[in-house]
Order: sequence, then structure tokens, then C-alpha cells
Amino acid sequence: MSVHPIRVVLVDTSHPGNVGAVARAMKNMGLRELVLVRPMNFPHEEATARAAGADDVLAAARVVPTVAEALQGVGFVVATTSRPRDQYFRNLDVRDAALRAVAETASAPVAILFGAERSGLTNEDMQAAHALLRIPTGSDYASLNLAMAVQIVAYEVLRAREAVAAPLLRDQPLASPEAMESLYGHLQQVMKLVEFRDRTRSGTSLFSRMRRFLQRAELDINEVNILRGFFTAIEHRRRRAGEHSNTRSGAESDDA
Amino acid sequence: MSVHPIRVVLVDTSHPGNVGAVARAMKNMGLRELVLVRPMNFPHEEATARAAGADDVLAAARVVPTVAEALQGVGFVVATTSRPRDQYFRNLDVRDAALRAVAETASAPVAILFGAERSGLTNEDMQAAHALLRIPTGSDYASLNLAMAVQIVAYEVLRAREAVAAPLLRDQPLASPEAMESLYGHLQQVMKLVEFRDRTRSGTSLFSRMRRFLQRAELDINEVNILRGFFTAIEHRRRRAGEHSNTRSGAESDDA
Repeated sequence: MSVHPIRVVLVDTSHPGNVGAVARAMKNMGLRELVLVRPMNFPHEEATARAAGADDVLAAARVVPTVAEALQGVGFVVATTSRPRDQYFRNLDVRDAALRAVAETASAPVAILFGAERSGLTNEDMQAAHALLRIPTGSDYASLNLAMAVQIVAYEVLRAREAVAAPLLRDQPLASPEAMESLYGHLQQVMKLVEFRDRTRSGTSLFSRMRRFLQRAELDINEVNILRGFFTAIEHRRRRAGEHSNTRSGAESDDA
Repeated sequence: MSVHPIRVVLVDTSHPGNVGAVARAMKNMGLRELVLVRPMNFPHEEATARAAGADDVLAAARVVPTVAEALQGVGFVVATTSRPRDQYFRNLDVRDAALRAVAETASAPVAILFGAERSGLTNEDMQAAHALLRIPTGSDYASLNLAMAVQIVAYEVLRAREAVAAPLLRDQPLASPEAMESLYGHLQQVMKLVEFRDRTRSGTSLFSRMRRFLQRAELDINEVNILRGFFTAIEHRRRRAGEHSNTRSGAESDDA
């Protein structure tokens, strides 16, 4: 549903390694537009090293002197903060902010602002924001690394874009109820053959317990055939041992 | 609702800076238990620097030589992967995996495994996993930095802790990785005893397939004992048939 891009704006970043890590975090999650406001030590080899396969995002990054210039052409603006809630702003959790940002890309580019490593965004930097974005943290240590914050935001943006659930795929179809019934019939025969006592002292049926956990494993048809092959091997050996002839020929375990 | 901790296990990490960044990412989201399997260059000043205010988490990190040791005392085990879906594992999106992990902390500690920076977890490292965890990415560049991956997982764990209402209860604790290993050893003995051909024409190990779906079933300790009792019954009958004496006395299936 996105039409316009989501732009990541880093303001007053001091560590070049962080800028590189941000570029990588962005590209990993499908974001490409990076704008740097007054970066210290940029460009820098450490930025390039940490960008790894996102060197193209880093190379395309624009460097500008003011937040206002970074926001040119943008519609919705979100400012990332770790400060307490500000009652005069719309305060959004990162997940809600990502949903909102993706929705806003239908009409115009969106900007998400991140402040300096130690101090965050100034009040002035936040003036153009429509909403504040907050990332939840534990209580012991709330100071996220800048690139980590971008990573979480970018991840939530990707999730918001994918909000439609992907189908659960399996290579092989789930074994049919009939196939499972045959499997359980076969299991019971083998249990009888090897004289496995089904009832515990407390009356629990061990066969029923096995049935439960095999249901839980959600076997496909190949897996059912492996088990039936195993049961057949047990039976064959017993037949050759000459003790019982009352066995059935089971399925083949052939190919899995 | 959490009672037991969630343990982050890093396997074969090569960059000390990543280990420090992981410690910070964890503490930022309220996680504290870090275990390092065969880390390269650890301890290291770069790890300490990147940990910043999470130096206590880093200092408390345990270093162990094997994944098995890292998983001691753990119930539910999740392996992080970026590889294509493995149909024989339970495949969980990071958000669902976090919800599940938090629910499982009601009964036992949970471990989340992360592999080496370049190669990820090996198949062997993943053997004790009950589920695979995947982080969605954009299509251009899917290779997440290790610490970023931990950050997203830890963030979703924090969200899950905030969101989970009712705990998933099980009567019995999940069988330990050690108990599952003993079960698989027993299964292999029985397979050999009944001369069940392990390899298919296409080279698939049927034992590995069974192992996968038994992991998927997430057996509790009673269920493991039921299976071991079943295996023992097969062995006893074969012994009485006088063909082999090379069997083991297995666990009792007694009460379920």
C-alpha cells in the first residue's frame, strides 16, 4: 500500500559507526532514504564498515544543515523520544507509530526523526513533528543505542507493511484423519504384539497419550509412512522370530 | 507472569563488539541471562565498550564449550535462523516466538539460540530446538547484524511480557534436552534391533525425521517415559524371542 517513502532523519549524530549501522538496519527492513542533519565525522570509514551490504544507502544519504531542510517534501513527521510523555503532542507507541506512518505514505513521504546519541532531539528539532514515537524498554536501563532504536522502528515499519498475514505453507500436506486413524490402528497392533501394557495403575491409557502427542506433532503423510515403516519392521522381525503370525503388512517407509 | 528467565545463548560469536552490544540490547529490554558458547576474543575491551551500562550483564555472562551445556536446566528451546523454512520444525515468526517463550517461562527457563555472525546456527546446534524463530526482513538485504537480531527478539519479548494475559499451562514440565537425548539414543537402539533401514534411497535419515517430529510434539517427561516403556517392551519381547541379547533395559512406562 505504500506509495511514498519513509525517510529516516538523524540529527547531530556523533558516532560514524552508528550512521553505518543505521544504514544497514534500514536496508534490512526495506527502508532506503537516509538524511543526516549536521553529522559529526561523516563520511568515515567506520560508517562504511558498519553499513556492510548497505553501502549504497549510506552513499545516497543526504547531508543537510537543518531539520527544516531534511523535512522538505515530507507530509507526516514523527519524532523519536525517550523522554516522559508530552501532553501537547500526540504520543504513539512505536508499533502504532509505524502503522500510522505506513498509512500516511499513501499521501506523501513520511519522516522519522532521531536525535543525538546522548541528548536526543531538542525541543526545536521536534517542532515540526505531528507525533512523538516511544520505544518501550525495561526499567533497569532504558538508554537504547541509536542504531538499535532505528532497527526497532524499521522493523515495526516492515511489520506494518506486511500487516496482512502470510499463509502457512507446508511442503507436504498434513496427513488426513483417515491416514492418522490407520496409523493408530497399526500402533495398537504393534503394542499388542510386543505386549506393551496399555493401562497404568491409575487407569490412564498410554495409547491415548501417544495419540495425543502424535496429533500435536501435526504429521505430514511422509512422516506417517516413516512411522508405519518402523512398525512394519518391528512386526517383520517378530514374524521371523516365529512367535506370532497374526501381523499385518504395513505401509512402506520408502521415501521421505 | 514470568517466573523463570529467558536465556540468550550466542554460539560461536566472532566479534567481541557484538557481544557487548547484545548485552546492552538485552538489558534495555529487561533480559539478563547471557551464555556464550565458544566465543572468539572474549573477554575483550570492545565488548565492554559496546555494553555501556550493561557491563553487569556482560560480567555475569557464562562461557561454555557446548550448546548442550548452555541449555542445562532449560525447558523450551528456540533457535534463531535466517534460512528458508524447515518444514520439519515448528516455524515461528519472532513475534509469535516471543509470546510463546514468555508463556513457557511459567514452567521453566527458556533459551533462545543465536548462531555465528556469518554462518548462523549449524544443524547440530539446532537439534535441541522445539521451534525455529525467524525475523522478517526486506528483500534487498536480509542479513541482520547479530546484535540487531537480539535487539528485535528482546524487544518482542518485552512486548510479549506486557501483552500476555493467561499463561499456557502444562501439567508436567517439558522434557529436558538431556531426557530427549536419552530417548533418541533408545530409539536408535530399537531401530537397529528391528533392522529398520535408516536411509532412504534419496539419502534421507528417517531417524532424523522422527527426531524432528518428536521435537515438534514438545513431549513432557511422562510422554518420554511412555515412549521409553514402549521401546523397552519391544526389546524385551525380542530378548525373549531369543534372537538378540544385546538390548538395554529402558525406562519404565509406569505412571502417566
